[in-house]
Amino acid sequence: MGKFYGIGVGVGDSELLTIKAINTLKDLDIIAIPESKKGEGSRAYQIAKEYIKKEVEVISLEFPMIKEREAINNKRKENAEIIRGFVKKGKKVGFLTIGDPMTYSTYIYILEFLRDKISIETIPGITSFASITSKLNLPLVLGDEDLKIISLHKKVDIVKEINNSKNIVFMKVTRSFEKLKEALIITGNDRNFYLVVDCGKKDEKIIRDINDLTRENITYFSTLILKRGE
Amino acid sequence: MGKFYGIGVGVGDSELLTIKAINTLKDLDIIAIPESKKGEGSRAYQIAKEYIKKEVEVISLEFPMIKEREAINNKRKENAEIIRGFVKKGKKVGFLTIGDPMTYSTYIYILEFLRDKISIETIPGITSFASITSKLNLPLVLGDEDLKIISLHKKVDIVKEINNSKNIVFMKVTRSFEKLKEALIITGNDRNFYLVVDCGKKDEKIIRDINDLTRENITYFSTLILKRGE
Repeated sequence: MGKFYGIGVGVGDSELLTIKAINTLKDLDIIAIPESKKGEGSRAYQIAKEYIKKEVEVISLEFPMIKEREAINNKRKENAEIIRGFVKKGKKVGFLTIGDPMTYSTYIYILEFLRDKISIETIPGITSFASITSKLNLPLVLGDEDLKIISLHKKVDIVKEINNSKNIVFMKVTRSFEKLKEALIITGNDRNFYLVVDCGKKDEKIIRDINDLTRENITYFSTLILKRGE
Repeated sequence: MGKFYGIGVGVGDSELLTIKAINTLKDLDIIAIPESKKGEGSRAYQIAKEYIKKEVEVISLEFPMIKEREAINNKRKENAEIIRGFVKKGKKVGFLTIGDPMTYSTYIYILEFLRDKISIETIPGITSFASITSKLNLPLVLGDEDLKIISLHKKVDIVKEINNSKNIVFMKVTRSFEKLKEALIITGNDRNFYLVVDCGKKDEKIIRDINDLTRENITYFSTLILKRGE
């Protein structure tokens, strides 16, 4: 019987896949890889590669970086239909996601089209913030503290967010970088952050000096963890 | 050379340990298990048990549920000293935590005493909310949405929190259960939640009806996920 699997592979270290993810990878007929442009390559695939059998068919699904809502939606639907076709033929199809499948992933958009139509199993993965904080031996949240996760964009009231939570993870930092820098200074938190650039990649770096928070220093895969001072 | 490891084991499914966690477990000399009362048993140990060699020494560290800050702190320090003693003698000591070591764990308090004194490595784990949402095929957070994680207690302004975040995970629900129920109703979110009781255990159950949100139905290991309506 066919089945669709969403598989979290963590953010870079192949040892941070779960046993369940690895066992599932070994049992697949087809692996679907999301690419923003065909042939561009996939980090998720690189991370999971060593656990994938040679005879597994790898198919690329294109999720172009476009702005038109309808066009994006049509593309997602089209990709979901491709997966549904394989599952209906009895294939086991896996969809790889960086980090955790239920935390800001493309997999969620595919899932929404396939829910109740085919058999689906989601296998959780280690998120970027769990990965980073463990690597740094840095507590993410403890005791009665709270934690906010924000995918940064222009409309976020950053100062308000800082005032409302003890710990904050800002993802997609490049999208509103100047405002974030300003907010850290205004609220007196210019020493309380850990900015991880290219998290999980070989050239990962950690920035702790507010003066190094420049556009040239950060990439799309940048995450800032704020541990607010008292 | 001795080393101290914090190891996340997830919330119940032994297949949700990472390969890194399993390899580390197999390499340990001593496993330290936090118990609120000696001999009480440990869920973290039960989850990881199948990966632990028979010759590994298991020691219990007592973290009593007491209120006095100083007494708690002394007990933590005492436990940290026990671990330091073993590591100084060249032992590899592992400390097991349910879920992820950097997310609301007892390990963090031990870590703070040992930082810069001995060699330490933290191995991330699958959190309760990643585990739950994958199991339910329920998106936790996507696109431009945000997510708040709250360890519930009496002082939390729940209505304000609901108004400030699109998705919220409430942990330790028993601590302010009546106020949470009231806030869900007031804000019109009495149908938008998933309450997972005894998450990861065999008798795990999911409550979606607000009328079933009663003290008798929930336990210490209860997590409520709110996906706020528009």
